[in-house]
Amino acid sequence: MSITAAKGWKAAGVRAGTKPSGDLDLALVVSDSPATVAGAFTTSSVPSAHVIVDRPRVSNGHAQGFCVTAGIANAFTGPEGVKAAEHMAATAAQLCGFSSEQDMLVAATGTIGEPLPMDVISKGLAEAASSLSETGDEDAANAIRTTDAYLKTCVRTIDVGGVTVTVGGMAKGAGMIAPRMVPQATLLVFITTDAVASADVLRDAITAALPKSFNAITVDGCMSTSDSVFLLANGAVGADVAGSTAFVDAVTEVMADLAYKVVADGEGATRVIRVQVTGAASDDDAYAAAREIATSILVRSAIYGGDPNYGRIVQALGQAPVKLDPATLRISVGGVELGYGGNGTGRGAEAAKALAAGGDAVIGADLGLGSSSFEYLTCDLTPEYVKFNAEYTT
Amino acid sequence: MSITAAKGWKAAGVRAGTKPSGDLDLALVVSDSPATVAGAFTTSSVPSAHVIVDRPRVSNGHAQGFCVTAGIANAFTGPEGVKAAEHMAATAAQLCGFSSEQDMLVAATGTIGEPLPMDVISKGLAEAASSLSETGDEDAANAIRTTDAYLKTCVRTIDVGGVTVTVGGMAKGAGMIAPRMVPQATLLVFITTDAVASADVLRDAITAALPKSFNAITVDGCMSTSDSVFLLANGAVGADVAGSTAFVDAVTEVMADLAYKVVADGEGATRVIRVQVTGAASDDDAYAAAREIATSILVRSAIYGGDPNYGRIVQALGQAPVKLDPATLRISVGGVELGYGGNGTGRGAEAAKALAAGGDAVIGADLGLGSSSFEYLTCDLTPEYVKFNAEYTT
Repeated sequence: MSITAAKGWKAAGVRAGTKPSGDLDLALVVSDSPATVAGAFTTSSVPSAHVIVDRPRVSNGHAQGFCVTAGIANAFTGPEGVKAAEHMAATAAQLCGFSSEQDMLVAATGTIGEPLPMDVISKGLAEAASSLSETGDEDAANAIRTTDAYLKTCVRTIDVGGVTVTVGGMAKGAGMIAPRMVPQATLLVFITTDAVASADVLRDAITAALPKSFNAITVDGCMSTSDSVFLLANGAVGADVAGSTAFVDAVTEVMADLAYKVVADGEGATRVIRVQVTGAASDDDAYAAAREIATSILVRSAIYGGDPNYGRIVQALGQAPVKLDPATLRISVGGVELGYGGNGTGRGAEAAKALAAGGDAVIGADLGLGSSSFEYLTCDLTPEYVKFNAEYTT
Repeated sequence: MSITAAKGWKAAGVRAGTKPSGDLDLALVVSDSPATVAGAFTTSSVPSAHVIVDRPRVSNGHAQGFCVTAGIANAFTGPEGVKAAEHMAATAAQLCGFSSEQDMLVAATGTIGEPLPMDVISKGLAEAASSLSETGDEDAANAIRTTDAYLKTCVRTIDVGGVTVTVGGMAKGAGMIAPRMVPQATLLVFITTDAVASADVLRDAITAALPKSFNAITVDGCMSTSDSVFLLANGAVGADVAGSTAFVDAVTEVMADLAYKVVADGEGATRVIRVQVTGAASDDDAYAAAREIATSILVRSAIYGGDPNYGRIVQALGQAPVKLDPATLRISVGGVELGYGGNGTGRGAEAAKALAAGGDAVIGADLGLGSSSFEYLTCDLTPEYVKFNAEYTT
């Protein structure tokens, strides 16, 4: 169970026909009753049509469901694209009997610059609406996939005054992943809960969770036009989570788990890389330094090769817009210190052995200038990534 | 002829033993008489030892030669690394009979984080000093190569008041290439001339040439700790080039030619990509937009696949820190317009045919917001790049 694990949520995934493969490609998720909502979207200056349509709806703070089409991103499609997104939402809202079409959110992922085939979408929505069920979560999670090798879901439950509150989510994303979202990201994340929560409480939870989840991952350094995270609460179990740190923690855990799965499924990737920057002079510096290492294709290629190449880590730090002093800089790979202040430790073979042991590859950079830290997740860069993206049109 | 094409310059390239391959790895180039100098260095906050040593020497405005070791970058090597660079320069200056060791510049390229073997270098310098000749330019250009598939040289001559002035250069670089140099990049570029020119005249020429050459190229988005450009003038032909636009043009042509050769030789690359941004609101915007497209591994993979994927170009622009309006944005590949203001032209097959014809791949992005433009050169990203960098330790 994932997106329908919380009480009062139903889902469906159908084959509308927007994926050339003929796989499931249209998801619909609705609550039995009105729900509150908060979201976060891409900071791209060319946001997709669905981002344009959803922003004011999410700002309203209420929604009752969402529909997602995969195969076509409906991005860079001009005013016609916005109309198509609005039409898709209106059609779905009507089929689900919503009192206001504004309560239906809409998302899309796939090729940029192609129009949505509305006849195909409308037919698919009708089929989805008639097949909504509490066990439709797996079909829905499969329908939103594009280059994803597997579906990504997560569920957490917490106890709120004796009542079990459930937070369940699904995500898609394997390429064009380098989200920098602000609350108000082709990463699509949908989380539902049966808690009672105002839009403000939901927004605070997303704001707390983003730096520890989707804003701390990258596959290819390419931020999508369509990145979006949605968190909806329908209050079905009656437990109010205002002021609950357990709720914020549960949302953070679900988002962090889904974010890890996105990186682990990064196009062509064989392993996750954890870039851990410590000792930075400021939080901004810790973030920027970690991001620069995580987006370096030289570092990511080296990890693919099992090479604890600390020179490339130093190179990446050198171009990061952060306060840096080579004399206090300490670099490690796989927990093995390789260099400090310009003095090599000669422990390269040991680090190579640590890498060869498998699991997540850990890169450590202690700037030695302060107490700020940040962990950024990425994946190794492989020849398969390039082959895949030379052949696949996004 | 290249670095010794100008009158009064001699060069040598020898096998000192810093390259595991046993190829030529130490270059020495000197003028028969004192010369003026200007240079530009990496903006990395972890500059290599040679950059630290050369900066004040270049600021002095005079020099008479330079020595270059390849295989070890002498970067992130602490105070010992700086001492080694100073010792290398002092040894070379003494061997060449310079009155001041400050007149010898020093450069290094190769693995970061390893100490220079001074005994090997000293022996190599002695051999190089005894074999300096006017025909040693090819050995010198070969000695500075690391991952370069071929040597990179260029010569231009201009007429100054009836006197032929020669500008000749050599460069190395195929990976870790994304220079952002400021006058005062492991790209190493050496240019000699026999013109009479003050350090100021040389500095002005480099400042004019950089935005049209090395600061407008990238292979992998990774700026080296060691990038350096040097321009030396020994006045051997007696013609003063103060105020000569022909001289600035000749320096620019030599630097642009060498920069193109670096990109064309980009690790694993099969073709050059020319990213041409026009209609930007400002020069800074034109540069930033072009750079964002040129460093996108999704765009570079698509070009390798012969795919005129304009969605990825839109994606890259969307994350560029520039003024952008999707309504006025026009994208072309191979000279074929693919999208304007969110309306696809349906000419993808035509663009694919243009790409398949070979030659440089041209990406055009007209932002439609102003009159600023910038051309940024990069190369396609191939599986061979990743394989190469998974195996090679830089």
